[in-house]
Amino acid sequence: MQSQRTSVRVRYAETDQMGVAYYANYFIWMEVGRVEFCRALGFRYRDMEIDEGVLLAVVEANCRYLAPARYDEEVIVHTRIEAATPRMVRFGYEMRSSEDGRKLATGETKHIFCGRDMKPRKLPERYRALFGIGGVRQNRPLANCARGGLV
Amino acid sequence: MQSQRTSVRVRYAETDQMGVAYYANYFIWMEVGRVEFCRALGFRYRDMEIDEGVLLAVVEANCRYLAPARYDEEVIVHTRIEAATPRMVRFGYEMRSSEDGRKLATGETKHIFCGRDMKPRKLPERYRALFGIGGVRQNRPLANCARGGLV
Amino acid sequence: MQSQRTSVRVRYAETDQMGVAYYANYFIWMEVGRVEFCRALGFRYRDMEIDEGVLLAVVEANCRYLAPARYDEEVIVHTRIEAATPRMVRFGYEMRSSEDGRKLATGETKHIFCGRDMKPRKLPERYRALFGIGGVRQNRPLANCARGGLV
Amino acid sequence: MQSQRTSVRVRYAETDQMGVAYYANYFIWMEVGRVEFCRALGFRYRDMEIDEGVLLAVVEANCRYLAPARYDEEVIVHTRIEAATPRMVRFGYEMRSSEDGRKLATGETKHIFCGRDMKPRKLPERYRALFGIGGVRQNRPLANCARGGLV
Repeated sequence: MQSQRTSVRVRYAETDQMGVAYYANYFIWMEVGRVEFCRALGFRYRDMEIDEGVLLAVVEANCRYLAPARYDEEVIVHTRIEAATPRMVRFGYEMRSSEDGRKLATGETKHIFCGRDMKPRKLPERYRALFGIGGVRQNRPLANCARGGLV
Repeated sequence: MQSQRTSVRVRYAETDQMGVAYYANYFIWMEVGRVEFCRALGFRYRDMEIDEGVLLAVVEANCRYLAPARYDEEVIVHTRIEAATPRMVRFGYEMRSSEDGRKLATGETKHIFCGRDMKPRKLPERYRALFGIGGVRQNRPLANCARGGLV
Repeated sequence: MQSQRTSVRVRYAETDQMGVAYYANYFIWMEVGRVEFCRALGFRYRDMEIDEGVLLAVVEANCRYLAPARYDEEVIVHTRIEAATPRMVRFGYEMRSSEDGRKLATGETKHIFCGRDMKPRKLPERYRALFGIGGVRQNRPLANCARGGLV
Repeated sequence: MQSQRTSVRVRYAETDQMGVAYYANYFIWMEVGRVEFCRALGFRYRDMEIDEGVLLAVVEANCRYLAPARYDEEVIVHTRIEAATPRMVRFGYEMRSSEDGRKLATGETKHIFCGRDMKPRKLPERYRALFGIGGVRQNRPLANCARGGLV
């Protein structure tokens, strides 16, 4: 799996008086994207927290806004892993309108694996292959993900 | 102390495309109101959670919206305890514009005390007097709180 | 159509440090519920705003919390119209876990129809039948909606 | 004025089940920071929207998270203009705990000036000096703002 595709519909709560989705909400959509990415990889992020006590703490996040997302619009979030080691993972995102395919935003988040005490720890062995760590995952550039659909 | 007065300023994030504060945010302002109420009573709600493991779980919440709150408007939240027992507490709120004093909304939240396991438990003795339980607290009707200022 | 069924998945952003969904978010889920209700009725709320300049301003909202909703849990929101006139509409909601069917919360929101100026106005004729106004809509009690599934 | 200092207190609503402030909220605090920055410059952002029809649309945002912000913690947001032209402005932010001064996060947002139609437009002349455009504003590096206090 190269990138995971999920969708969110812009909620009224997420708009602001500019008549578009408020900028902080894109980071929530990225969260939805990476959770669904994990589910597609074959595990629930929730279980990793509960069973292993492993948390994905965000250390960096950014977003570039290309076109406004409107109320009730369906936004397709393409999520992929850009880099991963036993200590950190970086996700890349591309958000597009489902109606006309126009690109709304791109973003990245970088996370470190840590314990419930918020101290860094290594990702348990059994999850590493899923994140493509130490493996043969071939990451194509993110630009491909929209062209390639649900790649 | 009869009611506690605190203020919030409407954030851009809290507006929606109707150009007014989105209705769910009033419940967040009520939270700000009751936390400041606790602080005025002489304790931090945070400490009660950390030190005693006592949580205030919401079991009921309602709000009546009288006039829209606008972006960047300062909203005065008057908070008071309407009823309290060792098992539950009910807060009442009145929100007014600081600019012209017009009433924006009124609301109530009812909470039960519970432990970290979300199971009901009794409020520890040392907090009871603060909540006016078993004591002589005289609650005047909420309508008075605006008239009486920072009563 | 008696009630409309839609689902939301609890986002990490929607949890709080109590480890459950924060109480104000239920009102956002109600919004998702009534928007999907409108879509099921045959129109987009968005279009009613854009084409007719008719807004649904909330004048009252309440929620009773019966069991906590957890992160990543799928919540089924059953939405129905409880009452409607050309000037106002009242929605009722019931939220259940999709996993075990336990009831999480019930709620209501009351709205008035108004224009962009936030002044009350009557719902245009063409939408009235959809809301069951002046018509033969038979509302069964909300309690039935879960039993009856997607009634 | 070099940087503007304002504070927010972490709301329960803003925490997540990790027990810290959810990462998207830092972008809301940046909004609070730049609105207060404008107020300190001598104008209300709200008025610029209403009177001039000039909006500050975000085109890029990023945040680096250095230490978690906890519930009820007071966060000092230092805001400054890093660059400004008649077409865009870039704000820089530094967030610190008021209790122990530890740095929690740094961030930037880049905005373009646009009209209600979301099309780019130039900032009206009367606002340019305020933003330090075409003027003599000397921006010291952001790193100084904490050292220099309320510079």
